[in-house]
Amino acid sequence: MPTPDLVPVRRALLSVSDKNGLIDLGRRLSARGVELLSTGGSARALREAGIAVTDVSDVTGFPEIMDGRVKTLHPKVHGGLLGRRGTDDAVMAELGIAPIDLLVLNLYPFEATVAKPGCTLEDAIENIDIGGPAMLRSAAKNWNDVGVLTSPDQYADALAEIESEGGLRRATRFKLAVAAFNRVANYGGAISDYLSGLQLDDAHTAVAGHATFPAQANGRHEKVMDLRYGENPHQQAAFYRDLHPAPGTLATFRQLQGKELSFNNIADADAAWECVRSFVKPACVIVKHANPCGVAVSLDGIGKAYDLAYQTDPTSAFGGIIAFNRELDGATAQAIVERQFVEVVLAPGYADDALKAFAKKGNVRVLEIPPPADGDLRAPHPGMNVKRVGSGLLIQTADTGMIGAGDLKVVTRRAPTPAQIDDLIFAWKVTKFVKSNAIVYARDRQTIGVGAGQMSRVYSARIAGIKAADEKLEVRGSVMASDAFFPFRDGIDAAAAAGISAVIQPGGSMRDSEVIAAADEHDIAMVFTGMRHFRH
Amino acid sequence: MPTPDLVPVRRALLSVSDKNGLIDLGRRLSARGVELLSTGGSARALREAGIAVTDVSDVTGFPEIMDGRVKTLHPKVHGGLLGRRGTDDAVMAELGIAPIDLLVLNLYPFEATVAKPGCTLEDAIENIDIGGPAMLRSAAKNWNDVGVLTSPDQYADALAEIESEGGLRRATRFKLAVAAFNRVANYGGAISDYLSGLQLDDAHTAVAGHATFPAQANGRHEKVMDLRYGENPHQQAAFYRDLHPAPGTLATFRQLQGKELSFNNIADADAAWECVRSFVKPACVIVKHANPCGVAVSLDGIGKAYDLAYQTDPTSAFGGIIAFNRELDGATAQAIVERQFVEVVLAPGYADDALKAFAKKGNVRVLEIPPPADGDLRAPHPGMNVKRVGSGLLIQTADTGMIGAGDLKVVTRRAPTPAQIDDLIFAWKVTKFVKSNAIVYARDRQTIGVGAGQMSRVYSARIAGIKAADEKLEVRGSVMASDAFFPFRDGIDAAAAAGISAVIQPGGSMRDSEVIAAADEHDIAMVFTGMRHFRH
Repeated sequence: MPTPDLVPVRRALLSVSDKNGLIDLGRRLSARGVELLSTGGSARALREAGIAVTDVSDVTGFPEIMDGRVKTLHPKVHGGLLGRRGTDDAVMAELGIAPIDLLVLNLYPFEATVAKPGCTLEDAIENIDIGGPAMLRSAAKNWNDVGVLTSPDQYADALAEIESEGGLRRATRFKLAVAAFNRVANYGGAISDYLSGLQLDDAHTAVAGHATFPAQANGRHEKVMDLRYGENPHQQAAFYRDLHPAPGTLATFRQLQGKELSFNNIADADAAWECVRSFVKPACVIVKHANPCGVAVSLDGIGKAYDLAYQTDPTSAFGGIIAFNRELDGATAQAIVERQFVEVVLAPGYADDALKAFAKKGNVRVLEIPPPADGDLRAPHPGMNVKRVGSGLLIQTADTGMIGAGDLKVVTRRAPTPAQIDDLIFAWKVTKFVKSNAIVYARDRQTIGVGAGQMSRVYSARIAGIKAADEKLEVRGSVMASDAFFPFRDGIDAAAAAGISAVIQPGGSMRDSEVIAAADEHDIAMVFTGMRHFRH
Repeated sequence: MPTPDLVPVRRALLSVSDKNGLIDLGRRLSARGVELLSTGGSARALREAGIAVTDVSDVTGFPEIMDGRVKTLHPKVHGGLLGRRGTDDAVMAELGIAPIDLLVLNLYPFEATVAKPGCTLEDAIENIDIGGPAMLRSAAKNWNDVGVLTSPDQYADALAEIESEGGLRRATRFKLAVAAFNRVANYGGAISDYLSGLQLDDAHTAVAGHATFPAQANGRHEKVMDLRYGENPHQQAAFYRDLHPAPGTLATFRQLQGKELSFNNIADADAAWECVRSFVKPACVIVKHANPCGVAVSLDGIGKAYDLAYQTDPTSAFGGIIAFNRELDGATAQAIVERQFVEVVLAPGYADDALKAFAKKGNVRVLEIPPPADGDLRAPHPGMNVKRVGSGLLIQTADTGMIGAGDLKVVTRRAPTPAQIDDLIFAWKVTKFVKSNAIVYARDRQTIGVGAGQMSRVYSARIAGIKAADEKLEVRGSVMASDAFFPFRDGIDAAAAAGISAVIQPGGSMRDSEVIAAADEHDIAMVFTGMRHFRH
C-alpha cells in the first residue's frame, strides 16, 4: 500500500557527527513546526542556538547508558522509524510510539578513526557506532513513510522541497534511502577491511600489525558513468571511481570537450597519463592499444616532445591517446589537430588557445587532470592494482618503484656517458609502461623503437629494431631498455648488431656473466637496475 | 580492561534463518545450564524439540510488533549484548539487564531474496533485516565479553570449546567477531548493490528494471592466500576469491603438488584455462606472458594436441603454463616433464600415472579445476571483468561471445572449404585470447604463428609470419584470424604473400570493400564474424 507521493515532516530525529549545517537545518525545520528529537552533542548544539529539542531519552523513558553505547536502540525510536503509516497506527498509538518522519544522521567515518596514528584496538572498537547504522537502516527500510539524510550535502535540496512542497516526495525519499544503504555498506566495509586485516599480539589485547591484504576485501566504488559498451561492442560496461580518489589520478579528470569516452579510451588514457606523469621535464606520451607507441622528453618544451613522440610510429599514433605533463599550449594543440586523428588528449591544464584549437575538432576528447596541491604530478599514489581472473581477483600494490641514476650498477668494462645515462633512465621509465616482454630503443630522450607484448624477449628486441628501420630512425648510438633480465646473450648480440651502444636491465639471470661478457665483447655499456617492471 | 581469556556462557540468544544444527546446539547448551533466549521460528523449533527457551519479548517486556519489524531493538537485548562486564554491572543490575554471553544469529541471504523470479520492491524491502545486523554488530563490538556465531559451520568448534573449556577463549571470540563484521559488510553490500541498481517506474512504486551496473559497486572477496610478491618482486600481492565462485573457473582450483603459486602463475593460468575450456574436442593451450604461444586441437587426444601446441613456439613454451580440457593421462604428463620446463599444468582431472610422472618433478604446480556438475567446461559464467585505472575501475561483462560456423558471412568470391571453416573457427577461438592487436595463423587445428600485442595490426601479422618461419612451420595453406577488422588492404596483401588461403575477421571497416577486393584479387576466401574480440 504505497503512501501518497508527498509525506509531511512533523517530527525529525537529528543525531550527527558532522555538525555542518545542523543549526540552519534545525532552525528551519523548527520554524515550520517540526518537533525535533536529538541526542548528545547534536542536542546540545541545537539548544545553544536557541532551538527547542526533545531528548531521545525523554521519548524512550530509558536513560542513555554504558557511556552512550545504548541510547537509541529502543522500540520507541525504531518503532517511530519503522512503523508503517496506515498499517501500524493502532499499535503505535497503543504503545505510545510517535512516528518519526525524518532522520538526520551521519556516521563519524571509521576510516578516519583507524587512520589516526597510534589508534589502539580499543579506540577502534569503541568508535564502531551501533545505534547510528541501525537507525539509518530502519529509516531507509521505511522510505515509504520516512526521509533520511546522511550528509550535510543533502540538506539544501531536502529543505527546499520541504519548504516549497510541505514534505518530501516519493522519488526523493527513495533516492535518500538508497544513499543511506550505500553509506551503511561503506561503513560496514571499512570495519571489515580494518578488523579482517588486523594482527593482534598473542594475548589478543594489542595491535601487533596490519596485513596489507585483509582476509576479506571490500571494494567500494561509485559509478561515474555508464559506457556505450565495453572492450568490445557485445560487452556492457561502466566506469567507477574510488570513494576517495588520489589527487592527480585519471579518475579525477574533467572532460572539457569531445565525444563520450569509451572503455578503451579510458584504459589507454590511464596508461598514457601514468607514463607521462613519471617524467620531470616536459614530456609527451602517445598510447595505442594499451602501449606507448611514442614517447619523448624535450627541454624545448612539450611541442617539441610531441613532434619527437609522433615520429617514433606515425602509423600507430593515428587514432591514439596523447598525454602531456605540462599545460598544453595553443601551438602544440594546433599541431596535433592539423597532423593527426586523435581520440583523447590529456594534460594538467590548457591554455585558452589550445582549447580554441581543439574546438574546431569537436569530437576530440579533451581531458584535464588537476595536479595535486603541491603540483608534483609524480607523487606516487599508494593504491592497489587489481586483475580479474576466473571468479577471483589478484590484488597487488601498485608498481610505484623507480630507480634513479645513483641506483644504477655498471656491470661492463665500459661505463655509460652522462648523456647515455640520461637516455637509459628515459628508456627505463618508458619500458615500465610497455606490455611485457618489453624492449625500448631510445636516443636523445626519444623512443626509436618499441617492442611490446611478446612471449619471448628476443622477439620484442627484433620488433623494436624492425619498427625503427621502418620509420627510418637511426638505431646507431641508441640505448636499449629491457623490463626484465636477458635469459641468454642472444638479445645483446642482436642489439649490438643493430647499433645499440648501452643497455639497461634489471640483471639477476643465472647467465648474467654470459650476458655481461657479450656486452663487453661488443664494447657496449650495460647497467643493472635490480628492479623488474613486468606489466601484462 | 581486558576480561579474562575465558568467558563462560551463561545466557545465549538464538535467532537463525538457517535452522541447520540449531537443535543440537540448543540441546547441548541447555544441558550445560545455559539459559536460552529466542524469537519466532527459532523459539518454536527449539520448543518442539523439548528444549526450554525464554521469549525475547518476555525479556524486554515489550511485544513483538509491526509483523516482526520491531522485536529485539530494545535496551534489554542490546544492553545485554553491549554491557561491559566489570564496568557496566551496576547499571545492568539497576535496570534489570541480564548479560547475554553468546549470540547465535544468521541472516537470510538478501541475494537469494532478490534473485527470486518476480521479487517485487516490497518483497525486497520487507526482507531487509534490521534487528539481526544490529544484534550481530552489538555482540561483535563487545567481543571482549561476548561470542557471536553467524553460521552453522561455526557451531561444532564453538561447542567443543565451550564443553571442554567451559567457555569461549579470547582468540576465538575475536575471530568470531571479525566473521560477524564481515557478514554484516556482505549483507550491507548486497542491499546496496540491489537498491543502487534498481530502476523504478515513474510513480516509484514498481520495479521497472535493474541496471547491470549499480550506482555503487560493492566488491566482496575472501582471501585465498597471500602471494610471495606481485607482478614484480617489489610489489606485494594476494589472491582473493568471489564469495560464490562459478563452477569450472580458475578460483575453484585444487593444487595437487608443486611450489607455491606466484601472481604471474595465476594470471597466466587463467588465460590458459579460459582458452582451453572454450574447445569441445581434445585441446592443449600453452601460455607465456599472458598470451597463448601454442594451441592445438586433436581428435587423436590431448597427447597429440600437446605435441602440436608445443611445436608452434618451443622457445616460449619453456617455462610456460600448459592447460588441457580433458583428464591428463600418464603418457602426456611424461612427455611434458621429459621435454620441457613447465611452471603450471591445469586440467579437469588427472590419471594416477600422470600424477606419478609429475611427482618426479616436485616443483611443477599441478592444478585440478573440477568441472561443473553437467561436465560442460565451456558453460560461460556471466561474471564481471574489472580493469584498474588510476583511482578508478572499469567494470564490464565478461567476453562470453562466440560465433559458430552458421554465423560466418562469406564476403569473397571464393567460399572456404569445410576444412578451412574448421581451421578458421579454431583460429578465431585462439585469437580471442591473444592480446590485441592479435593475428593468428593456423592450419589443421594447430597454431602456426601468433602475432600478439602490437599497436598496429600489420605488425601483428608480420610477427605471426616471422615466428612461423623461425620454427619452419609452413604457412602455405594456413588460415589467418584477426581479432578486429583490417583498416587497410595491406594486411591481406601481406597474408597472401605469406601463403594464407583463408581469412576470418569481424569486418566493419570503412574500407571493407577495398579489403574484400584485395582478398578476391589473391583468390583468398574471407569470412566476417560481425564480432570483435579486443583483449588488452
